[in-house]
Amino acid sequence: MNIIDKYNKRAREVDSLVCVGLDSDISKLPQRFLNMENPQFEFNKWIIEETHQYVSGFKPNSAFYEARGDQGMKELKMTMDYLVSNHPDIVTILDAKRGDIGNTNNGYVESIFDWLNFDAVTIYSYLGKEAMQPFLDRKDKASIILCRTSNPGSPEFQDLLVNDKPLWQVVAEKISKDWNTNRNCMLVVGATYPEEMKKIRFLVGDMTFLVPGIGAQGGSVKSVMEAGKNSDGLGLIINSSRGIIFSENPKEETKKLCNEIRSYR
Amino acid sequence: MNIIDKYNKRAREVDSLVCVGLDSDISKLPQRFLNMENPQFEFNKWIIEETHQYVSGFKPNSAFYEARGDQGMKELKMTMDYLVSNHPDIVTILDAKRGDIGNTNNGYVESIFDWLNFDAVTIYSYLGKEAMQPFLDRKDKASIILCRTSNPGSPEFQDLLVNDKPLWQVVAEKISKDWNTNRNCMLVVGATYPEEMKKIRFLVGDMTFLVPGIGAQGGSVKSVMEAGKNSDGLGLIINSSRGIIFSENPKEETKKLCNEIRSYR
Repeated sequence: MNIIDKYNKRAREVDSLVCVGLDSDISKLPQRFLNMENPQFEFNKWIIEETHQYVSGFKPNSAFYEARGDQGMKELKMTMDYLVSNHPDIVTILDAKRGDIGNTNNGYVESIFDWLNFDAVTIYSYLGKEAMQPFLDRKDKASIILCRTSNPGSPEFQDLLVNDKPLWQVVAEKISKDWNTNRNCMLVVGATYPEEMKKIRFLVGDMTFLVPGIGAQGGSVKSVMEAGKNSDGLGLIINSSRGIIFSENPKEETKKLCNEIRSYR
Repeated sequence: MNIIDKYNKRAREVDSLVCVGLDSDISKLPQRFLNMENPQFEFNKWIIEETHQYVSGFKPNSAFYEARGDQGMKELKMTMDYLVSNHPDIVTILDAKRGDIGNTNNGYVESIFDWLNFDAVTIYSYLGKEAMQPFLDRKDKASIILCRTSNPGSPEFQDLLVNDKPLWQVVAEKISKDWNTNRNCMLVVGATYPEEMKKIRFLVGDMTFLVPGIGAQGGSVKSVMEAGKNSDGLGLIINSSRGIIFSENPKEETKKLCNEIRSYR
């Protein structure tokens, strides 16, 4: 099934646009997990079971697993095996921000789509469509291209003007017009830039956005929903990582975020 | 020691600007390695011993190791342990093309600089200096920023005009003026675009370029040397991967490349 269809189906079924970011930084895990053999996996399993009923996506960030070397990669794989077996309807995204020349991207495709079994991955556009074709060719998977990132320093390059258009706008237009022929592309659009999100929504029609920046980074649910939802009341994968997984009560925080989003759909 | 100084010292000592790309794609390894317990590591060890006397850098591409999951990561780590113990004077570069928001980049820094122990890593600029600070702050390591990549599709974004300047030029200028305060930045400039390389050399003074695209991709040593060497006859890390490691005789190919470069220094 097309991954965007999979997401929309799940989002409708549980009435949720929430994605939980499994940014399971080992230095922040609760004490009780640290003596276990596979602490990141055990923590993830706990978060998944606490939150899944309110969730349409899970998004580990690869950096927090790579930081622990081959052991971290093993626990990321265990997390994915667990998700695929127990919650196959939930969309899985590896936030890896990858992108190399064509020949080399096959290695990432194998690792992320085939070995780890993710539904989707975040990628860069700077090397051009020709290079990123191994990702785009996978009709059974989705590629989420960095467009407007949520961090405070994103204007340095993303606001550069190309024929009076900021670079993020050129990225949005090229992806929606030239890259999305398999209908398997999405865009990263940060919650911290609602004006830009509104413009991108206007430019790209009903494409789906992965939205980081809610919570710890300061983005507001209200402005994201007003700026970003598409004509079906969907089109957004709203991610929260630290604000949920390291909170006192991950289940309650997820429910709260889910309900807040519902109130604006 | 500053990594660029380390490279220059080695390059002078062995009179070589050659970097061997350890792109040890498992599907292309010679048969005799495939039954070994750690085939990518054993292959790398062999290549390193065949070539090191003509070499100033080794550059594995992370994708070929990630393709094999945690086992690949383990063999990449074994390769690095071997290099650090046996050839500590040779510069090691992980071609990983990373880049996330600040908080998250710490995970990549830990993985690549501390766990794997690489001297340098390739990174993107799109998220801005603020995000990439965890890489740039490491004065004992180097960051190599993608400027003009070697692939045929690189013009799609990299030639976009920003105030009449192509984007690759804006990247080169920003990195050399604003990012390189610790003198630990280099640029990726593909051998397949010698005109652009010449312009970048003019713009950034004596900065060092990592140059992919020789050999299999079609770049010529003569035009790279004419366009790219700096005022010391250095400033270039000339990489060859497939053209060396999967040749009939890796030692001879490396010597040949080394000598060809010498003839233009």
